[in-house]
Amino acid sequence: MSEFAPPVQRLVAELAKLPGIGTRTAQRLAFHILRAPERDALGLAEAIREVKEKIGLCEVCFNLADEPRCRICQDTRRDRGVICVVEEPSDLIPIERTHEYHGLYHVLGGALSPMDAVNPEDLKIAELVRRVRRSAPAVAGADMDAGEAIAGASGGNGAPHVREVILATNPTTTGEATALHIAAELHALEPELELTRLASGLPVGADLEYADEVTVSMALAGRRAL
Amino acid sequence: MSEFAPPVQRLVAELAKLPGIGTRTAQRLAFHILRAPERDALGLAEAIREVKEKIGLCEVCFNLADEPRCRICQDTRRDRGVICVVEEPSDLIPIERTHEYHGLYHVLGGALSPMDAVNPEDLKIAELVRRVRRSAPAVAGADMDAGEAIAGASGGNGAPHVREVILATNPTTTGEATALHIAAELHALEPELELTRLASGLPVGADLEYADEVTVSMALAGRRAL
Repeated sequence: MSEFAPPVQRLVAELAKLPGIGTRTAQRLAFHILRAPERDALGLAEAIREVKEKIGLCEVCFNLADEPRCRICQDTRRDRGVICVVEEPSDLIPIERTHEYHGLYHVLGGALSPMDAVNPEDLKIAELVRRVRRSAPAVAGADMDAGEAIAGASGGNGAPHVREVILATNPTTTGEATALHIAAELHALEPELELTRLASGLPVGADLEYADEVTVSMALAGRRAL
Repeated sequence: MSEFAPPVQRLVAELAKLPGIGTRTAQRLAFHILRAPERDALGLAEAIREVKEKIGLCEVCFNLADEPRCRICQDTRRDRGVICVVEEPSDLIPIERTHEYHGLYHVLGGALSPMDAVNPEDLKIAELVRRVRRSAPAVAGADMDAGEAIAGASGGNGAPHVREVILATNPTTTGEATALHIAAELHALEPELELTRLASGLPVGADLEYADEVTVSMALAGRRAL
């Protein structure tokens, strides 16, 4: 790229830092940006700046938010009795897309992975435990901050009662380990709490012939009566 | 994406405008940018701004440039007697990568395509004709602007003599039409000028079995004695 001026080389280098974007694609994108109307190119630059300036994490569930609480936690129509625990904010997208889930979320910020030095204290696990404990049916003198009360229908101590926690971490080694770790903690805290995990099995539309054996094992183990 | 704050949605929308980037990829890139260190994300935003602010076209060859003339036109070691005509600035990359070409370029800004209303006057064809004519060996009273003289070894009238024009437009219908159109104009102007076209044939390393018939026809027609 030395045939081009330094600003062009710099743009290619910055684009090539994006995941899945090699040098060739970065060049193609850079030439597109060079050719694009001023407004479109600067729109992208501005969107990047804005997102870094305005977006933080929801103080309740750690989803992305441009206010103290995210849009889902603010939505009074959501069922505050169910919390779906996911690894990353992007994991909300496929679940929301089903239009079948109406509870809240809790974003851990990753999965346990001792090999990568990701330990329980690196994830929002303590915060999840606190959310569940805070919502437990009133016990005299329960440890509650008045300021922590969550809006909406509430249990005896200001937060609504959580009936179920869906552990929707990924069906991978680290995701499974994370789900088991959290299940143990929550079960110790509240034996009555319903703890569930998304079903594993054959994807709809998949071909049995090409399914891997672990998936088929899970599908067999989870087989349902017709 | 309505589960996320408007700035996140805006970034995804802007990224999805890039060529070859669908909504899913745009989401993945947006989440990467959200997670990336402030410095990296703003580096990309700044590179986009800088490129739109500083990059224009070389006044001689219409390559990208952050000065009146591009780096290649400024390079006194390049052979000013050969001009390679390409459609877009990005076409310089594969040619420069060979390290076999030491002449100058001329970037047309596209290819003739009556269907898309791209006519000769929409491309830098007149500018190419002027470059070649200006360099023609001195004729008394030739139409030359003194200010247009190009640095480097020069012919009788201030600009070096162009011996050869390589028409390196793409081997497509529009690229061929453009090459033929330019060849006719330049031949009428200077019958002595050498006009060449890049060879068409089988790509090195390709499999004859999978080559399309047009490419094989070209390879046959251009066969060389061993």
